[in-house]
Amino acid sequence: MDKLVSIIEEELNQLGALKVDAPLLHPKSLWLESGRWEKMNKELFSFEDRYHRQYCLQPTAEEMITKIFVGFGTPKRKSFPIMLYQTNHKFRDEMRPKFGLFRSREFLMNDLYTFDISKEEGLKTYTTLSELYLRVLSGILGLKVYVVEADSGEIGGSVSHEYHVLNDCSDAIIYVCEKCKKAVDNTLFLKGHKPCGSCSESFTELRSAEIAHTFQLGVEFSKKFRAVFGSDSVWMNCFGFGLGRIIAAAIDQLACEGNSIRLPLKVVPYKVAFVPPSVSTKGYNASSFAESLISQLVETEQLKDDLFVDDRTKLSVARRISSSADLGIPNIFVAGSFTARSLKTTPLIEYFYAGPREAPRKVADLTHNDLFELVKNL
Amino acid sequence: MDKLVSIIEEELNQLGALKVDAPLLHPKSLWLESGRWEKMNKELFSFEDRYHRQYCLQPTAEEMITKIFVGFGTPKRKSFPIMLYQTNHKFRDEMRPKFGLFRSREFLMNDLYTFDISKEEGLKTYTTLSELYLRVLSGILGLKVYVVEADSGEIGGSVSHEYHVLNDCSDAIIYVCEKCKKAVDNTLFLKGHKPCGSCSESFTELRSAEIAHTFQLGVEFSKKFRAVFGSDSVWMNCFGFGLGRIIAAAIDQLACEGNSIRLPLKVVPYKVAFVPPSVSTKGYNASSFAESLISQLVETEQLKDDLFVDDRTKLSVARRISSSADLGIPNIFVAGSFTARSLKTTPLIEYFYAGPREAPRKVADLTHNDLFELVKNL
Repeated sequence: MDKLVSIIEEELNQLGALKVDAPLLHPKSLWLESGRWEKMNKELFSFEDRYHRQYCLQPTAEEMITKIFVGFGTPKRKSFPIMLYQTNHKFRDEMRPKFGLFRSREFLMNDLYTFDISKEEGLKTYTTLSELYLRVLSGILGLKVYVVEADSGEIGGSVSHEYHVLNDCSDAIIYVCEKCKKAVDNTLFLKGHKPCGSCSESFTELRSAEIAHTFQLGVEFSKKFRAVFGSDSVWMNCFGFGLGRIIAAAIDQLACEGNSIRLPLKVVPYKVAFVPPSVSTKGYNASSFAESLISQLVETEQLKDDLFVDDRTKLSVARRISSSADLGIPNIFVAGSFTARSLKTTPLIEYFYAGPREAPRKVADLTHNDLFELVKNL
Repeated sequence: MDKLVSIIEEELNQLGALKVDAPLLHPKSLWLESGRWEKMNKELFSFEDRYHRQYCLQPTAEEMITKIFVGFGTPKRKSFPIMLYQTNHKFRDEMRPKFGLFRSREFLMNDLYTFDISKEEGLKTYTTLSELYLRVLSGILGLKVYVVEADSGEIGGSVSHEYHVLNDCSDAIIYVCEKCKKAVDNTLFLKGHKPCGSCSESFTELRSAEIAHTFQLGVEFSKKFRAVFGSDSVWMNCFGFGLGRIIAAAIDQLACEGNSIRLPLKVVPYKVAFVPPSVSTKGYNASSFAESLISQLVETEQLKDDLFVDDRTKLSVARRISSSADLGIPNIFVAGSFTARSLKTTPLIEYFYAGPREAPRKVADLTHNDLFELVKNL
């Protein structure tokens, strides 16, 4: 999860977005000002403090972040677009919490709010961020995502897009044009919207799960909170990555039979597992060979925090190879009885790879040099 | 703040502690089980969901983490000590929130819980972590801290230590032995405890603020939640860094007159500021010289995310030097009129340093080589 957060935050920082740590406790007055206290009331976790002042836990942060933006005073023209984000817990009193990380009442989200001096500039920023979203989900994480035109619901604004992955046990349904792969959500489809204007009349109904969303908020919140540039309300967009959902979706899309986890390489818990020989392995040199190898791997810059050594040497090598694969570790180096026998001539390390939707399989026998060459390029 | 979190988490990871993302919403049943629902009730933010089930927001996490520990099943002997930590928001309905980040009702904390198979092992773990706490606060951050023997209060257990910094506007009072610098808190002192057993009868009364605390919890929680190893309840300790408090204390301890922020080098927002010439600077080469320097600095590995370029070239150089210092940036490189004049012979960059409790002062004129030599060692 920390790796996923870093990937996203680095992309946002490079665009010049600023990280804030916004409060999770929101005063009721803030939500009365936007008119959403009543509107979202059933989904809000709300309560009083010891002095009977009312609060809620943030279900989303348009109000709070717009307020923070206004608190800055009037920024200079060249400071725009102004982009503020947080990586924080959100809380929604869901009617039916279910599907594990897909619909929980407390969840981790990276949410970004952008402010522009005009609609035209705002739409440019929306495009830039939409590209970033696709780059992260599809380019960096390698997930197959559908960009779905969606109903904006409670968040407001007129245009919104959701990023969906196929998921059989979810409850969302999207309609995808078979030709251009554009998609709309269920609500829009029922209102008569087609996935695409032109290319086809045949749409596939697919079961999917939302893992990110983007909204063109327009001036709805900036008007209410008097967020202006000159005499005009600023144009706002907002964007959110559902972090737990992304991990869950990735596991679901890539996992192997028998609940063995597979993950995109950028978010695996460790890139490399090393399996030293079992106590029962013959050849007394094998353990010390493995130990010297481990101490060299530990020193390798590329493996900092990314090396997992399974030293449960009472267990068989095969058992430990599947353990590593089950945890989602893709590259597994093994110094077992094969290595022990090779020590007389050229020492060789077995290399197993656990790819998406497949059991770990041996791909090569590596010399010492091969191994470090491979590690250098991970 | 992110830098402070990284420092602490890296130290904990190196000890073998595991990071968890524990829920912030705790069911009432959890707190009834420990007997603290009534005890802490006024400090708890509590509320009902739409089905009238009761929850509170975590004020501390002994209950939740012990429950998570029990959920693991029985760990092997050699897995001990087991150390679980989170970096997360805490919530306490303070009677009198005040002192900015020192007593707020929502605050960020790094809290760690350790589990040992015996009291003896537990005390060893307590010592190891106490050393880590001192290393972070005093060694890495360079703060002057007092380790204060303290009353355990609501957290429970028998022995606890707080880490205090001197702070005139705080409301805590500690009693320090003038000779050995050992200290006790107000409550213990009123109960007749002395800061040290032996060396002196004269104690100084000091006004201070708590920035971290550590507790020997013993078996209080493990008994209630049946956290056992074999037939014995495991021994628990807990430890917490108040992250906002540490930053506030550091600013307070190091700041310069006129609200100019100074911070420990490890947590400054940027290590280096670069001030290019003002538009009014004579010598047309100066800007292009500055630009080429900036592009080289950007490429420097040591300055990744640590270089701040103040390109408000309509403002004077002097004004921008103080701006950088006000933000807490210690090393300030300036290419102003002095540099412009030097370009005919040997180009020189002015180096200003803004140390703790002092205004930025010029310390050297650097050649290109001097500059990069210095940057390499930051």
